[in-house]
Amino acid sequence: MSDITRVALDAMGGDNAPSMIVQGAIDAVNERDDIKVFLVGKLDAINNELSKYTFNKEQIEVVEATEEIEMAEPPVNAIKKKKDSSMVVGMKLVKDKKADAFVTAGNSGAVLVGGQTVVGRIKGIKRAPFAPLIPTRTGVSLLLDCGANVDARPDQLVQFARLGAMYMEQVVGIKNPKVGIVNIGAEEEKGNALVKETFPLLKECTDINFIGSVESREIPEGVCDVIVCEAFVGNVILKLYEGLAGTLISVIKEGLMSTTKSKIGALLAKPALKKTLKSFDASTYGGAPLLGLEGLVVKTHGNASNIEVKNSIIQCIAFKEQDIANKVRESIANDSPKND
Amino acid sequence: MSDITRVALDAMGGDNAPSMIVQGAIDAVNERDDIKVFLVGKLDAINNELSKYTFNKEQIEVVEATEEIEMAEPPVNAIKKKKDSSMVVGMKLVKDKKADAFVTAGNSGAVLVGGQTVVGRIKGIKRAPFAPLIPTRTGVSLLLDCGANVDARPDQLVQFARLGAMYMEQVVGIKNPKVGIVNIGAEEEKGNALVKETFPLLKECTDINFIGSVESREIPEGVCDVIVCEAFVGNVILKLYEGLAGTLISVIKEGLMSTTKSKIGALLAKPALKKTLKSFDASTYGGAPLLGLEGLVVKTHGNASNIEVKNSIIQCIAFKEQDIANKVRESIANDSPKND
Repeated sequence: MSDITRVALDAMGGDNAPSMIVQGAIDAVNERDDIKVFLVGKLDAINNELSKYTFNKEQIEVVEATEEIEMAEPPVNAIKKKKDSSMVVGMKLVKDKKADAFVTAGNSGAVLVGGQTVVGRIKGIKRAPFAPLIPTRTGVSLLLDCGANVDARPDQLVQFARLGAMYMEQVVGIKNPKVGIVNIGAEEEKGNALVKETFPLLKECTDINFIGSVESREIPEGVCDVIVCEAFVGNVILKLYEGLAGTLISVIKEGLMSTTKSKIGALLAKPALKKTLKSFDASTYGGAPLLGLEGLVVKTHGNASNIEVKNSIIQCIAFKEQDIANKVRESIANDSPKND
Repeated sequence: MSDITRVALDAMGGDNAPSMIVQGAIDAVNERDDIKVFLVGKLDAINNELSKYTFNKEQIEVVEATEEIEMAEPPVNAIKKKKDSSMVVGMKLVKDKKADAFVTAGNSGAVLVGGQTVVGRIKGIKRAPFAPLIPTRTGVSLLLDCGANVDARPDQLVQFARLGAMYMEQVVGIKNPKVGIVNIGAEEEKGNALVKETFPLLKECTDINFIGSVESREIPEGVCDVIVCEAFVGNVILKLYEGLAGTLISVIKEGLMSTTKSKIGALLAKPALKKTLKSFDASTYGGAPLLGLEGLVVKTHGNASNIEVKNSIIQCIAFKEQDIANKVRESIANDSPKND
């Protein structure tokens, strides 16, 4: 069993559950034979979907959960009250070491709460950062923290930097990833109190490739691989990224449809444009991990397609193979005397 | 003289000085006869440019300043040392009530420092916010504070909201402007410590149309007219706005140039696209004011064209006519017992 990556999948979470979720699981096990997926949720609904496909029965197991957490439900309450929800049951599989990772397209807030309370943080991890990959001109960057816990301390930001660098290097496969801290100028003396305190601590870290301050203007150009910031700022960046890209693309579409000549032009340019814009679409990069937990928790988009679900599942293999949780434990142990 | 708006213009500031700056001044006085422009800078350079145009000599006066502040110069030092720079001399004209406003395309940091130290804050104003207009789907929104002083207090954010609402209503001409605070969720209990403390104070303000939290995702859609935040967050939003729009537009251009078919399409679509993208180009909206000072200070883009310079000058008329500085003084006086 040790060569197999076991992924608990929330079959009921997200806008397209259970059909797209189940299809993503099928796609994953049909592509890789070193994966086992636990489909967690309502038996009838899941089995009904499964009956549409042929697959290796040993690679998929259905685990019953009778409740569902709705997308708009207040997270703390949902995790506390719905003990038999697909999210809580799936996370417990990770907690009990029956699964290596949990993947869900469900309620983001509940993922953050459940990750910390059900799966639990690795000892020494002060806060588990939520770390989505955002598209850039040259690829992707990991932005953390985008979670719900704001007003972080400098030592927490330093942990985020380490966790992010480890993830980018060992799971995403970027050698010696460049780490930057979000700031409002390039100079070390710039910034708010938090950034000014964190900057010298990051400079002291010999285990990461810290390149200094990153202005938000430079982020879309892909100047660094790991972008560290406090969660309020991370949320502002992530949501502005999504919002501005969405608005600009729709404004451009309106522009293209505004005259007959431009409509013809748009028709000719469409395939090339589509390919370009696709590379800037966050949804193609699978899931965002919640780092620093006793097992991996991955959140995919609420409207994830089967391809995103499949990518999110396959992402878990590298995490398991590289034994990230253990590496985090070691790194924290080495670090503790200094920063705790 | 009282019906004339007197604008001191930094003839040496910005990438295109003095030629574009002088041309902008000429355009302004040729369009409006209720303006007088003081062109501040090196006599020879300015007179050389002026000799190219015909204009009403009474509307333009050259004021000598023998020094220049470079674009990359450390601001505090520059303002302190270069007493005879075009920026300091121009700001002094406002301080001494010889001009109603100062317009510059020069060093942003120096504008912020000089605005507060040379022109000076209105009594009771705790911090003078820098407030650029950012383009949205429906028009523009005023984003403040984007200045250099971070880690603001709740009472300062409340002042920003008031100053911003006053500017949008009386200078830009938006009736009963909607004011929102940047937050990471719609609910009142969301946010960092600063936002949670500020939110109820804004709700209590009967003189502004406070609509609550605004998520950064919604900003490009134009959900509110005045967007209030602390300067670190303001800088992140402003610079990401510029950076992401720039990267996306260049990625789209590359996409359009990638195949022969798409190239032909691009050629046909170009006029319509150009018009659309122009509306999302921050540079078309003239200058960003530094609010709460004893006179108006307006910063235009470093690479401002004559049109932007002209627009920035003309913007000052409404500020003068509406007697904004006095209205701020009254509003602060009414407010002082409660919030100081």
